[in-house]
Amino acid sequence: MDCNGSFLAETESVAADVATAPVTIVVCSSCRDENGSDAHPRAGALLADATRAAARDSGTIEVRTVECLGNCKRRLSAALLRDGCWSYVFGDLTAESGSDLVTGAELFATSQDGLIPWRGRPDSLKRGLVARIPPLAMLKE
Amino acid sequence: MDCNGSFLAETESVAADVATAPVTIVVCSSCRDENGSDAHPRAGALLADATRAAARDSGTIEVRTVECLGNCKRRLSAALLRDGCWSYVFGDLTAESGSDLVTGAELFATSQDGLIPWRGRPDSLKRGLVARIPPLAMLKE
Repeated sequence: MDCNGSFLAETESVAADVATAPVTIVVCSSCRDENGSDAHPRAGALLADATRAAARDSGTIEVRTVECLGNCKRRLSAALLRDGCWSYVFGDLTAESGSDLVTGAELFATSQDGLIPWRGRPDSLKRGLVARIPPLAMLKE
Repeated sequence: MDCNGSFLAETESVAADVATAPVTIVVCSSCRDENGSDAHPRAGALLADATRAAARDSGTIEVRTVECLGNCKRRLSAALLRDGCWSYVFGDLTAESGSDLVTGAELFATSQDGLIPWRGRPDSLKRGLVARIPPLAMLKE
């Protein structure tokens, strides 16, 4: 599989015509800032707030929080989920990454192949990729 | 949420009575060894073979491969998936980690709460946790 999205030319050419699908951004609200501070609100909670604010006018993007995405070695974390598609985890985010997450989610919402296109992703969602998981349905024989 | 599985005592006490659910192990077959060698078969492919061999007698565990789990910074990688449960990605594995993955998958198959129990996990699946992602259905409001 091509991690870098060679399908992009096609995606871009049809983007104006395709319907978007709901995408859920899951922010880890318990993540600490780069100093490891236990202060509240946690940096992850601030990121969740910023993400909700950035998604306010979107009819496609939902924002949820969980208390641990298990990615504690790479600071602030969030996942992007779309039904039937690959699931993505990003790390090395900051409390200001909310608009990047929404930009990535909007791109994901237009995907034709279940992957987040590489072109157009904010740099934080290129450098910060932690893992991607295929949908279970794709793996059945 | 308790990442360390405080529900374990209950899980253990009922484990003998509960049915197991299918768990899929997804091995990244393109991962290189610790030297970054391009030689084939790749270390990830050897891990996939070892995992299939370890799962041979299991009626519960399926083994699949993909070409990239996006976890290239932490060497050999695999994911554990169970329908309706959290999805897990592990890194820092070796070509000999197949039996650990199957042990973790068998533990996951008995889970009552959608999480892989902490107690009983092979050390490689404790230290090697890269991320976990909640099931989309859990996040709906």
